[in-house]
Amino acid sequence: MNRKMVGTTIGQVMLIEAILMVLPVIVAVIYKEYTTIVPFLIPMALLAVFGWLLSRKSPENKTIYARESFVIVSLSWIVVSLFGALPFTLSREIPSYVDSVFEIVSGFTTTGASILTNVEVLSHSILFWRSFSHWIGGMGVLVFLLALIPNAGNRSMNIMKAESPGPSVSKLVPKTKDTAKILYLIYLGITVIEIVLLFMFGMPLFDSILHTFGTVGTGGFGVKADSIGGYNAACQWIITIFMMLSGTNFTFFYYILIKSYFKAITMEEVRWYYAIYFGAVAVITVKIMNMYDGFFTALRHAAFQVASIMTTTGYATVNYDLWPSVTKMIIVSIMILGACAGSTGGGIKVSRLIIALKNSYCELKKMLFPRSVSVVKMDGKSVEDSVIKTTLVFLTLYAFIAIVSIFLISFDGFDVTSNFTAVISALSNIGPGLSMVGPSGNFSAYSNFSKIVLTLDMLAGRLEIFPLLMLMAPANWRKAKIK
Amino acid sequence: MNRKMVGTTIGQVMLIEAILMVLPVIVAVIYKEYTTIVPFLIPMALLAVFGWLLSRKSPENKTIYARESFVIVSLSWIVVSLFGALPFTLSREIPSYVDSVFEIVSGFTTTGASILTNVEVLSHSILFWRSFSHWIGGMGVLVFLLALIPNAGNRSMNIMKAESPGPSVSKLVPKTKDTAKILYLIYLGITVIEIVLLFMFGMPLFDSILHTFGTVGTGGFGVKADSIGGYNAACQWIITIFMMLSGTNFTFFYYILIKSYFKAITMEEVRWYYAIYFGAVAVITVKIMNMYDGFFTALRHAAFQVASIMTTTGYATVNYDLWPSVTKMIIVSIMILGACAGSTGGGIKVSRLIIALKNSYCELKKMLFPRSVSVVKMDGKSVEDSVIKTTLVFLTLYAFIAIVSIFLISFDGFDVTSNFTAVISALSNIGPGLSMVGPSGNFSAYSNFSKIVLTLDMLAGRLEIFPLLMLMAPANWRKAKIK
Repeated sequence: MNRKMVGTTIGQVMLIEAILMVLPVIVAVIYKEYTTIVPFLIPMALLAVFGWLLSRKSPENKTIYARESFVIVSLSWIVVSLFGALPFTLSREIPSYVDSVFEIVSGFTTTGASILTNVEVLSHSILFWRSFSHWIGGMGVLVFLLALIPNAGNRSMNIMKAESPGPSVSKLVPKTKDTAKILYLIYLGITVIEIVLLFMFGMPLFDSILHTFGTVGTGGFGVKADSIGGYNAACQWIITIFMMLSGTNFTFFYYILIKSYFKAITMEEVRWYYAIYFGAVAVITVKIMNMYDGFFTALRHAAFQVASIMTTTGYATVNYDLWPSVTKMIIVSIMILGACAGSTGGGIKVSRLIIALKNSYCELKKMLFPRSVSVVKMDGKSVEDSVIKTTLVFLTLYAFIAIVSIFLISFDGFDVTSNFTAVISALSNIGPGLSMVGPSGNFSAYSNFSKIVLTLDMLAGRLEIFPLLMLMAPANWRKAKIK
Repeated sequence: MNRKMVGTTIGQVMLIEAILMVLPVIVAVIYKEYTTIVPFLIPMALLAVFGWLLSRKSPENKTIYARESFVIVSLSWIVVSLFGALPFTLSREIPSYVDSVFEIVSGFTTTGASILTNVEVLSHSILFWRSFSHWIGGMGVLVFLLALIPNAGNRSMNIMKAESPGPSVSKLVPKTKDTAKILYLIYLGITVIEIVLLFMFGMPLFDSILHTFGTVGTGGFGVKADSIGGYNAACQWIITIFMMLSGTNFTFFYYILIKSYFKAITMEEVRWYYAIYFGAVAVITVKIMNMYDGFFTALRHAAFQVASIMTTTGYATVNYDLWPSVTKMIIVSIMILGACAGSTGGGIKVSRLIIALKNSYCELKKMLFPRSVSVVKMDGKSVEDSVIKTTLVFLTLYAFIAIVSIFLISFDGFDVTSNFTAVISALSNIGPGLSMVGPSGNFSAYSNFSKIVLTLDMLAGRLEIFPLLMLMAPANWRKAKIK
């Protein structure tokens, strides 16, 4: 284990967080919220000092392998969360530190689950930091680092693999640094367009910025108690469209940018993603039509809610917990499914579903005709055996972690539906679930122990299980001592 | 596709069913229920005629491959169910044919889910047939055939693989016919001992026989509205022990019989099975202690209910739907898990869990140390790669079928918990679920469409998905035409 390299990289991440905290301080100054400035300055100072201490010497040996990158990614996320929670606690707007960590992890992992019973009482700077964490976490703080630092060495690809969601990472261009830059530029472009559009259609500027962070990061933190329900239909449609775009595999946008339109529209995952989306919207619109005045209102609510759940954003315009049970079933299914790989969305990802189903089909074929040869193909290329294996292991672990977590939080004594959907929601980085944790509920009723379990679930979901597990692997640390 | 061989074998199965129906007729004569004799004689005559027509000529080419055996097993089970349902409908005790098929499939697959609101009004012969179906289905009607017919040819092993539960079938002795005989002898032995014990401890003879069928087949059909709740504590303990024994891998008993005690007690699956059982009983006993008068009553109810759910039997002594939520979570988890491979129990099986987890561990290790070599081992032997793959495909399909089924039955509009546990219960061949389909509820409220979905789930669960899917595979039938 190259411990020096782990330390240096985490130090750099801490420096970045210190710099990013300047933005909420500016917001505090604009809105004259002077009491919230110190709560930001304290963690900034700590991050700057420790970050500088850790990263001041560049290690000679810059080589890192898969295991270092797993450790770097999980430790970075934990450190960023522990410091990022401080402004909440220090400003006394979220008095409990456990709650603060839950809230900021929910932010960075773009979950959007909240322990707050009323967000409208928070100050602007705290609201800004809370939503900004979605934007930072959406594309990934280490991908940001890779895009920035001049000499990433050969560490870049392994780190990107560990932090980016999906069964495999596609390098858009030969250099990882350039890939990271392109991804962040697309991300920034979408962000700016959405802010402008929302503002043009009548949403206040502050709300536009924060909801855009929540949308493009597929997070879901808002500024109002009724989420997006209080804004006009045009704004709801804009958010619907941008949620779906943010859940699309970013390779799609890259193809569009370099004018490879055919490659873009034939991407299998993107096709399935939109097919499942439109199918779900159609069924739900029909089922809820009689609950709203007219087809178009029902369509708007269905389109919004399905986009919100499927992309794992978590915004709501209505309380879907009151919808008929077949609708809820669709919602739970797409909760687990999630968005595309290589997007800011969570869940098990559409591509993993495709791989698992295609693999099942191939294996069934082999059972019938033992001598036949069949391979799993995606976008015309055959999928490597190691990717299939990792996908199946991922699904096994996802189910296993879900069951253990539901078991642990059920000691609090709430109903099965709440516990089940709370865990799925945390693990898929969605935000709301059903029943007690439905779109009009929140996570405040759970005990501190359950909140910690759900916090770990959110991290496991965002980092896609492996890095966190690797961090805990004794084999990993044993090897370190020998070296 | 060797169609002649498929036809002959199904014909033989039909003849066996005709003979087995003699028993309920005898019961009808004993209890002087003359009106229920004709409803048995009609299907008996039909089975005899069609069975004779199909099996009268022994085909020259007795070779069958995996695909023939999948077709034989699934068609046999469907035919046996369609005819086995007739006595219910013809006797007018279950007027609807869809309900009758649901009930008999629930019997043969050893699920034990019922659409009846009151079992106490049924006649003795119908009750007998209903419970006897558990006994027939528990070990498998084709395994029975294999044990009986003199010249099974080389078809035996493939059929046994397709009908027996678990990721792989262990031949106890070189000849499949002898393995089938040994299994049925052990089965018969356990059956006789339990009947005698129950009778000795005060249960009426008729009830003893029927509850023994329900126990050793891990079915769960009873004769009273409150299941086993009305019998004395001794009888409840006896049933608890025999449920656990019936959920044990039968290879264990074979090792005991041939005095390989060391091999028996070191069987990994059996160890995990009892470890999980005792763990679950311990936690639940503590959680429900204040609900009952004293530790031993709580222990008895916990031991009974956990055994009933884990072995997928489905009997109940109390309504566990009223227990605290952590208890329900344990119940749902062991519902999905199920019993040992090579037992009469359902679920995904303990051995599949072991394989999936061990495989995950190996793959994680490979991610950390790409050049390391690690293999999945079970009972000291390495597990074949094809078994691992099939296991993972099984788990994928199990989850997929569960989600699609929950979606389909949720059109009836019942709550999420009922729908979710109804499907899991059907797919794992348990019987009761939670909420509306809890131990004091039943499946009668579902629509005919949902009942058909659940009936198919029960069959898919008992035959472990593959044979039924294979039956529907177009590739299977296409090839048949060419040949």
